[in-house]
Order: sequence, then C-alpha cells, then structure tokens
Amino acid sequence: MKKINLLSKFNKFNELWSPKVIAEMNDYQFKLAKIKNDFIWHSHEETDETFIVIKGSMSIEFENETIKLNEGEMIVVPKGKKHRPFADEEAKIMLIEPRGISNTGNIVSELTSDNDQWI
Amino acid sequence: MKKINLLSKFNKFNELWSPKVIAEMNDYQFKLAKIKNDFIWHSHEETDETFIVIKGSMSIEFENETIKLNEGEMIVVPKGKKHRPFADEEAKIMLIEPRGISNTGNIVSELTSDNDQWI
Repeated sequence: MKKINLLSKFNKFNELWSPKVIAEMNDYQFKLAKIKNDFIWHSHEETDETFIVIKGSMSIEFENETIKLNEGEMIVVPKGKKHRPFADEEAKIMLIEPRGISNTGNIVSELTSDNDQWI
Repeated sequence: MKKINLLSKFNKFNELWSPKVIAEMNDYQFKLAKIKNDFIWHSHEETDETFIVIKGSMSIEFENETIKLNEGEMIVVPKGKKHRPFADEEAKIMLIEPRGISNTGNIVSELTSDNDQWI
C-alpha cells in the first residue's frame, strides 16, 4: 500500500489517449490519460465511466449536447451512452471504471489502447 | 447527466467528517468531506476505500506506519485494514467507495455520519 502522486505519475508517460493504470479499488481501476484533439464516438455497454479533469480542460460530445469540463470538474457518463471526448489543448485526466474496460468501448480502432498498462 | 465542480460542491457544506455524495458510478459513490483533527480507528470489512486529497493535506495512521497525503495525492486503503485519518489543518478530500458504506466502518460512534447525504 503506497500513496500515489498524480502529477508524478503523469510525468512517466507522454502518449496521448493511452490510459495508464495507477491504482485498483476492488475490481475498479484508476487510470490517468493525456489527451489532445479528437477521440472517436463510442459507448461502454457494461458500465458507467467517470472522467475527472486534473489539469487543463476537455469536452465530451454527446448526441444532444457537448459538455466542457475544466480543471477540478468531473462527470459520470452513464453506461451505454454514446460519447466523443476531445481536447483543443493537451489535458491531463483521470478515468475511473471497472478493470478490463476498453478505451474505445464497443469500437475497435487505431485508437484502441492496450488494457491494464500500469505505471 | 451534469458535470460536477468539486470546489463549488465544497462550498455547500461546512460540517467536518460528514461525507456528502456528489455522484454515483454503477454502485459506487463519490463523496466529498472536510476534515480536521482526529478521526477514530476503524476498518471496512467489505471493501477497499479510496482517499484523494483535493485541498490541503491529511494523514492516515495504520498499525505499522502513518502516511501523509498532500494535495493531488491518493491512496487505496485495502478492505479490512485498520486506519485512522487525521488532519492538523482543515483539508478537503474525496472518498470513493461502494454505496452504503459507513464512514466509521465497523464502529458506531458520535462521529458516525448519516449515509447517502447528497449535495
């Protein structure tokens, strides 16, 4: 059991849209990601997904609205809800979701990332 | 589905050691708490528990060590592990754990808080 410093963990990687696991709580994982530009439309049929913005800002496009999240803001995307994250400038975010969830959900794309990449 | 601003939520309450629910993800809850001085020794036999320090700093005493968490740091306390949180100055923290978990775990005390207090 060790404490985790979020900014130190962000210093350990530079890839975009490639979530890195930093901790597990029961069968859930905390992941950090650096994001910039556009991600793809996808949904997670089996689970809600939490986004927390640690540095910078990001947006999530839904079918009927786009929500901008600034530093210190979070949202829980309900399971099955189609969404498309994007960020005009690089943002540092935390994702919380069950172990084993693909970053592109129901879609396989060149943006699909390996799962369970710990840093 | 709405975004949540953590600092705005912290402005909505002043009680200490009284976690307020701000969001749910599946059967898990995100809670905010203001803490200062000493909490009691307790454990959660059924689940891990995550602490993230949003503002200030706190410590958690375990049977064999004390870990200080500063702003931007987190820890996952394993289920069943006895711990005692404390903070010399008021700190703002986020807790993540399954719905229905008591803040004093296996102990009933005057510090036991009502569950499921949404803000």
